[in-house]
Amino acid sequence: MNQIGVIMGSDSDYQVMEETLEILRQFEVSFEVIISSAQRTLERTINWVKGFETQGGKLIIAAAGLAAHLPGVVAGATILPVIGVPMSSGALEGIDALYSIVQMPLGIPVATVGIGAARNAALLAVQILTIQDRSLRIKVKDYRAQMLQDIEAKDEALQKQLSEVS
Amino acid sequence: MNQIGVIMGSDSDYQVMEETLEILRQFEVSFEVIISSAQRTLERTINWVKGFETQGGKLIIAAAGLAAHLPGVVAGATILPVIGVPMSSGALEGIDALYSIVQMPLGIPVATVGIGAARNAALLAVQILTIQDRSLRIKVKDYRAQMLQDIEAKDEALQKQLSEVS
Amino acid sequence: MNQIGVIMGSDSDYQVMEETLEILRQFEVSFEVIISSAQRTLERTINWVKGFETQGGKLIIAAAGLAAHLPGVVAGATILPVIGVPMSSGALEGIDALYSIVQMPLGIPVATVGIGAARNAALLAVQILTIQDRSLRIKVKDYRAQMLQDIEAKDEALQKQLSEVS
Amino acid sequence: MNQIGVIMGSDSDYQVMEETLEILRQFEVSFEVIISSAQRTLERTINWVKGFETQGGKLIIAAAGLAAHLPGVVAGATILPVIGVPMSSGALEGIDALYSIVQMPLGIPVATVGIGAARNAALLAVQILTIQDRSLRIKVKDYRAQMLQDIEAKDEALQKQLSEVS
Amino acid sequence: MNQIGVIMGSDSDYQVMEETLEILRQFEVSFEVIISSAQRTLERTINWVKGFETQGGKLIIAAAGLAAHLPGVVAGATILPVIGVPMSSGALEGIDALYSIVQMPLGIPVATVGIGAARNAALLAVQILTIQDRSLRIKVKDYRAQMLQDIEAKDEALQKQLSEVS
Amino acid sequence: MNQIGVIMGSDSDYQVMEETLEILRQFEVSFEVIISSAQRTLERTINWVKGFETQGGKLIIAAAGLAAHLPGVVAGATILPVIGVPMSSGALEGIDALYSIVQMPLGIPVATVGIGAARNAALLAVQILTIQDRSLRIKVKDYRAQMLQDIEAKDEALQKQLSEVS
Amino acid sequence: MNQIGVIMGSDSDYQVMEETLEILRQFEVSFEVIISSAQRTLERTINWVKGFETQGGKLIIAAAGLAAHLPGVVAGATILPVIGVPMSSGALEGIDALYSIVQMPLGIPVATVGIGAARNAALLAVQILTIQDRSLRIKVKDYRAQMLQDIEAKDEALQKQLSEVS
Amino acid sequence: MNQIGVIMGSDSDYQVMEETLEILRQFEVSFEVIISSAQRTLERTINWVKGFETQGGKLIIAAAGLAAHLPGVVAGATILPVIGVPMSSGALEGIDALYSIVQMPLGIPVATVGIGAARNAALLAVQILTIQDRSLRIKVKDYRAQMLQDIEAKDEALQKQLSEVS
Repeated sequence: MNQIGVIMGSDSDYQVMEETLEILRQFEVSFEVIISSAQRTLERTINWVKGFETQGGKLIIAAAGLAAHLPGVVAGATILPVIGVPMSSGALEGIDALYSIVQMPLGIPVATVGIGAARNAALLAVQILTIQDRSLRIKVKDYRAQMLQDIEAKDEALQKQLSEVS
Repeated sequence: MNQIGVIMGSDSDYQVMEETLEILRQFEVSFEVIISSAQRTLERTINWVKGFETQGGKLIIAAAGLAAHLPGVVAGATILPVIGVPMSSGALEGIDALYSIVQMPLGIPVATVGIGAARNAALLAVQILTIQDRSLRIKVKDYRAQMLQDIEAKDEALQKQLSEVS
Repeated sequence: MNQIGVIMGSDSDYQVMEETLEILRQFEVSFEVIISSAQRTLERTINWVKGFETQGGKLIIAAAGLAAHLPGVVAGATILPVIGVPMSSGALEGIDALYSIVQMPLGIPVATVGIGAARNAALLAVQILTIQDRSLRIKVKDYRAQMLQDIEAKDEALQKQLSEVS
Repeated sequence: MNQIGVIMGSDSDYQVMEETLEILRQFEVSFEVIISSAQRTLERTINWVKGFETQGGKLIIAAAGLAAHLPGVVAGATILPVIGVPMSSGALEGIDALYSIVQMPLGIPVATVGIGAARNAALLAVQILTIQDRSLRIKVKDYRAQMLQDIEAKDEALQKQLSEVS
Repeated sequence: MNQIGVIMGSDSDYQVMEETLEILRQFEVSFEVIISSAQRTLERTINWVKGFETQGGKLIIAAAGLAAHLPGVVAGATILPVIGVPMSSGALEGIDALYSIVQMPLGIPVATVGIGAARNAALLAVQILTIQDRSLRIKVKDYRAQMLQDIEAKDEALQKQLSEVS
Repeated sequence: MNQIGVIMGSDSDYQVMEETLEILRQFEVSFEVIISSAQRTLERTINWVKGFETQGGKLIIAAAGLAAHLPGVVAGATILPVIGVPMSSGALEGIDALYSIVQMPLGIPVATVGIGAARNAALLAVQILTIQDRSLRIKVKDYRAQMLQDIEAKDEALQKQLSEVS
Repeated sequence: MNQIGVIMGSDSDYQVMEETLEILRQFEVSFEVIISSAQRTLERTINWVKGFETQGGKLIIAAAGLAAHLPGVVAGATILPVIGVPMSSGALEGIDALYSIVQMPLGIPVATVGIGAARNAALLAVQILTIQDRSLRIKVKDYRAQMLQDIEAKDEALQKQLSEVS
Repeated sequence: MNQIGVIMGSDSDYQVMEETLEILRQFEVSFEVIISSAQRTLERTINWVKGFETQGGKLIIAAAGLAAHLPGVVAGATILPVIGVPMSSGALEGIDALYSIVQMPLGIPVATVGIGAARNAALLAVQILTIQDRSLRIKVKDYRAQMLQDIEAKDEALQKQLSEVS
């Protein structure tokens, strides 16, 4: 039984969404992935969503570009929380996908992250899971501590570089 | 057997979409209307779409606002041509709906008209039906001739008004 | 111990955010509310966030308009999931708030809902809580069933109205 | 007698619009192509449109970039349905063309597809032709079935790739 | 023989475009006005444009909203300079008209003024006419001097008001 | 005495604005060019503008990017017609320049052409000069005829290419 | 000798810019006000700016709408820091003014505040003056403390209201 | 004791922000630099800001991209004037950062410069410092004089190039 389902509308989204999987692996959160479209393979999408919910899945991350209907359609088919990732593609570079995901009508919310923010989608999923999984909280705190250290290290490197200049 | 199906995501869309029905009545094209949502009542939407196609419906007009998934979801469930009408609502005043409808992914086109362009949706539907219905062609030509006369009449009224000024 | 914390940057946001509270009350989910700003009362904001997390709060809903920093600042101060609600105010009517909330940098996601989508923020919060609260799942399913019925009722009313016309 | 006329405002549009022709060939729908401009060669454009309608053409696909007047001007000169393809070019990358095509005034609709969506324009044209051509319906259904298979195949490839990773 | 032709796509544009006529009257520049559409009455539009050029008209001001094709179509039918006025109407409030007018393709320029800038269109027309009409130069200089005086008068009024406050 | 003055805010604009000069040379219209800024060298700019007007110059083409004040500042310093060319540069790719040029306040119009439309600026200038220079009219008509021939030639080449394909 | 000069392009800006004056009065910072335009009364504007600098003025606040050139033109005529306030007016509701003010070319910066942010412009001016005026620092800190108290008072009122509801 | 503090949210901003440092060095204004984030290292950021103010720092330049909270958060933690630099990154190319910085709520202004305008941020800082540092005024005037000479030199080079062409 996987905790998180990751669905994307096209295999072209995989290059970016691979970052979602990396984060999930890093936090040792079980997941499954599926390529399925909101329009081209709607039934298949709905079936997977319902099966994932029935089998005890906890949260779905859905990524799509252009007129990105996938996150909203998934959200309509389940009561699991759905995180939407607008992908940047085509002439509008993701603005279309952002609006198509975030502006959901009353009743069916999608938790939207930034354009192409595949890693943040995974981190949000992990944070949501911490509500019932205390051990994950420590991992999130460690991740944050690591970010702090990274910034400090980069700052230190910059200070060194600047002192060498002068 | 109705030729045109008109579907809208919310009864709040009816006030505008009533204009679609007026045009269809004017052209004596049979139609049916349904309120159904892409996310809140997906199965019901799909069932209606499939039933409408099976019963010999020829074309669907779908209207939705915000993250307007309805036209795209309908288009994915039928091979009938689907005309999408982006509705103006909320803070983005229809830009969100326009992008959500027109930027469909490869394979499932939606024939998009202007924001709130309920009458143009009906006229486009009628024009499409003229492909197999010769009698409709005359009606469209009459409608165009009437538009020409209306513009000429308005121009005449303006000329009169202007000549009175000077 | 309240499950959900609702924070807004200004009391002018309350008129819209009251809808969030109504939904939470409807689902019998405990909550607390605070008015505090990301810039004008940063320390107070951070203290409340940390206290809310320590006391076992599970999720925060943060609403702000204009250069809406509140959700992001809250998200940086806690590992609880944070739902951001962009408020429509000023000349940009919420586009500024949407971008300021959804485009968070790597590491600190905010689960963004639509502009002014106070009710969807609450529904998303409730859906997230269902991960550990099975009784809430039934309530969400009931809410969805009610939405379905509402749409069917509205459709029925429309059909009746249309049949009377013809 | 060709069923579909494809008109583009500039030969620079051909590189993208070639995809329209490929789809039409694939569906064995007869077509003709013309390069003609709404402003630079208006009379020539109008003459071609009127001739195409007179000779029994059924539908026109018009592509243009920038202040894309071609689809609208074509639509004003015929009662055939007109599909507009906004081309991405110049600093506004197709937003200008999208607005110039989709926001047609009352009376003269253009069935607009996505920015650069040359293939979807052809698919929409084919779907419209199915209204009177039953044999085309099977081809559209086959095309859709093929899309389904393509997505499943890509999903399968991804599952394989992922299972090899773990 | 009128010097300036003013064409607008709809009588709804007249309320704003009346300001153009007021300025032209103020500068005693002869003009004629016509309501005619780029799509609905294309031939009528072209005929008027060609006639106006033949009869010695010097410049055309064309106003249109939405997918504003009128200025561009007029510009394609004449070598007279054409001033385009994007009208604010519909959900996009004139952005669509602005892009549809200003982003003309190579070869057929339109001199675009601001959204709804009916008076500036007239002033630009008058300035263009000064190239061959020396007496108009004095009037333009007088108009500018008057603007200067108006600003100084308003400033004076403000200074007085402020000094009364303190 | 040059008829047209071309002013640009930065030498980085020259690469594009060279196209303006090519068109002016082609039409044998005399011109002069100056690099001068609206903010960095305001006095120099004003002096040149006033000198150009005094010496009998007829029209100014002003190009600028970003917060493009140059055309408007030039227009405020002369009663000659001013054509503004928004240059695409920086993150906003010319939208900033377009708005900064076209949205002029009441009283000081700028005849705005498309983003980067250096050649159209020159053509508009030439068309304006035809008001008093009959010989130029023939050149403009020749230029238009040439455009028509170019499009026909490109169409012919495409037809040939397509017939070879089939 | 006034410390701050406030310039606005039109008396219609005064209704909003009055808020700037209120803040300046509250902080007891001396100021003078002038209505003068960047294009319509350029010389007058430049003369005032230069005079203000010569007489020992320290900072200028410039407000303008539409193609808002005033702040940039003022900034080019002085080395005093210039704060620009984009005013919301016309169809673009201040986006045009924002871009026209903030996107200044290299060398002549304008310190831009939010659309219509007349009070923030004054507060920024006061904060800049604190660099050399220590007594102002206390006033700014008091103002901030007051903001804190206001938010706490509003929060308290809300808590009371909520406790009465339950 | 450094006069200016430069803070950036990520080391990826350094490549652009290095230009700020170059200008500050050129004007011999002392500065310090820190990499610290508004969300990831909020406490560290606040501590640095407060320390910088306490030690007599005079002004802070803050750069950030995406949902750029850093300048606003810094501004909330100090009464020193804060200059915000929106960085271009991600799909929205800096529009998000611009809105997130410039649209600050009442009470906490940020002096915003153009997208990526690192040099203008430094020049604005220097101009602000001239209020109390008379020697800097001369340097700013020299810098401006140099800009004037650069433009004249570039113009001269262009004139030479053009005269060689003809």
